[in-house]
Amino acid sequence: MRAEVLAARLAADRARVDACLEALFDARSVDTCSGDARTATAPRLDAAMHHGVLVGGKRLRPVLVYAAGRALGADDDSLDAPATALELIHAYSLVHDDLPAMDDDDLRRGQPTVHRAFDEATAVLAGDALQALAFEVLARAAPPRLPALMLTLAHAAGRDGMVAGQALDLAAVGGQPSVEALATMHAHKTGALIRAAVRLGGLIAVDDQDPRLAALDAYAQAIGLAFQIHDDVLDVTGDTATLGKLSGADAARHKPTYPSLLGLEGARVRASELVEEAIVALTPLGSAKDPLACLARYMIERDH
Amino acid sequence: MRAEVLAARLAADRARVDACLEALFDARSVDTCSGDARTATAPRLDAAMHHGVLVGGKRLRPVLVYAAGRALGADDDSLDAPATALELIHAYSLVHDDLPAMDDDDLRRGQPTVHRAFDEATAVLAGDALQALAFEVLARAAPPRLPALMLTLAHAAGRDGMVAGQALDLAAVGGQPSVEALATMHAHKTGALIRAAVRLGGLIAVDDQDPRLAALDAYAQAIGLAFQIHDDVLDVTGDTATLGKLSGADAARHKPTYPSLLGLEGARVRASELVEEAIVALTPLGSAKDPLACLARYMIERDH
Repeated sequence: MRAEVLAARLAADRARVDACLEALFDARSVDTCSGDARTATAPRLDAAMHHGVLVGGKRLRPVLVYAAGRALGADDDSLDAPATALELIHAYSLVHDDLPAMDDDDLRRGQPTVHRAFDEATAVLAGDALQALAFEVLARAAPPRLPALMLTLAHAAGRDGMVAGQALDLAAVGGQPSVEALATMHAHKTGALIRAAVRLGGLIAVDDQDPRLAALDAYAQAIGLAFQIHDDVLDVTGDTATLGKLSGADAARHKPTYPSLLGLEGARVRASELVEEAIVALTPLGSAKDPLACLARYMIERDH
Repeated sequence: MRAEVLAARLAADRARVDACLEALFDARSVDTCSGDARTATAPRLDAAMHHGVLVGGKRLRPVLVYAAGRALGADDDSLDAPATALELIHAYSLVHDDLPAMDDDDLRRGQPTVHRAFDEATAVLAGDALQALAFEVLARAAPPRLPALMLTLAHAAGRDGMVAGQALDLAAVGGQPSVEALATMHAHKTGALIRAAVRLGGLIAVDDQDPRLAALDAYAQAIGLAFQIHDDVLDVTGDTATLGKLSGADAARHKPTYPSLLGLEGARVRASELVEEAIVALTPLGSAKDPLACLARYMIERDH
């Protein structure tokens, strides 16, 4: 796949999930469950949820849902719900991670974070509501294999996934963990949702016994770590305007990073190795693997 | 049902859901999804989740799941997952509502709140993980009608349910809303999960077209409001030791309450009327309604 083709595909998938997300807010004068007019008007909460979801964002996880699902034969319409649900989980996690008690960030995607644009209580509630909305969106679509899909999403979001990663990250500030400990933290903090993205897409297409799901999972684990290493590299080499967040923030906060443990060049090499591993893991998919391989390379070529 | 029989039934159901909740934490040296040893050890997060869930609690919502399910013929085993899931949602909401940016409470069920016993970041994360765990528990059980069950739970927990109620509550502090506005707030803040409890129990037993679900819903709406009015009454008349939280806290915080709007006696009368309405609504259930009718009376007779 040529670079322009990949770029067009990324743009199309982002537009697709953005439309799905926007529709959730457009529809909000009506209770989407009962169809009745909504009785509780909480415009500040709605605006905060909207801000948390719709201000920019690479939509990487939805893009992976679409790519993995298509590679196993799912049609685009059937992938909208898991793609949307996963982005809602991601968005909620950013709103909460940015809170003063957590990372205390003022800027996200070039915009004020939710607790800065609104207030802290509203940010807690908006994050909570976005998490519930993710499960609501998936339940409403009621795809085949809903139990496995729900379990994948909930497990990746929770104590054995993303939340554990954030807890490990907070505990690591100021320390100098091993490369292995850093990998474990990232495997949870960002890796869990990236694996979930690929698995959700796959599960829309095939049964959970299909061996191609294992191939996709090996791919997802490798690109998840490569993505994070590249994020750490960008924190050193990028500029604030392109990143949409403060560059050098990790170092200022004494957060352990791959460049701090492996050096900048060592981190780049490790990220490249992981991308190659990811592409090899896709072999069982035959030629259907090409878009996913392109996405793997994109993980470490993006500038923000 | 005599008072002693109701008390024994309540105790048995509480013990049942407590055992289900405790098992979630006992099993936590193993990843419940993969069956592998867990790679991320976050003992502080685990302890905070455990604290949030297992320190006391009336377990009212699980009790309602069991009672509603049994009234329509469900067996107890099949009700464990929705009962547990609902209590996890309730527990997470208390952890977040107690945060300094929200109600800023130090005491809950006679124990330090999670952010006091641990720290604020851990409390945010523990709440987040408990919410995800609720959906995980329900997905893992994979009962029939999972889409409707998941939708009921997610909708009640989120922007059109409990979270909206908390947002309305925060917005109302210091004001003097109408009785109708107060009812709308409570219909979301506590009512949504009480309705969900009754509906989840019912949906374990019967299809969502069964007219008895509508009868149960009318019952749940009435007892939900009666429960909240009685809570407001207890805040005036109860003592801190029995309540397990500071009595008089609503007045001190200038929160609008039913006694402040209707007077203490007026609030008691309104709660009694609602309980009678709830019992009348159960008529389509025939004699199967008796335990639910007892629970309705218990809502306004409890001393904490």
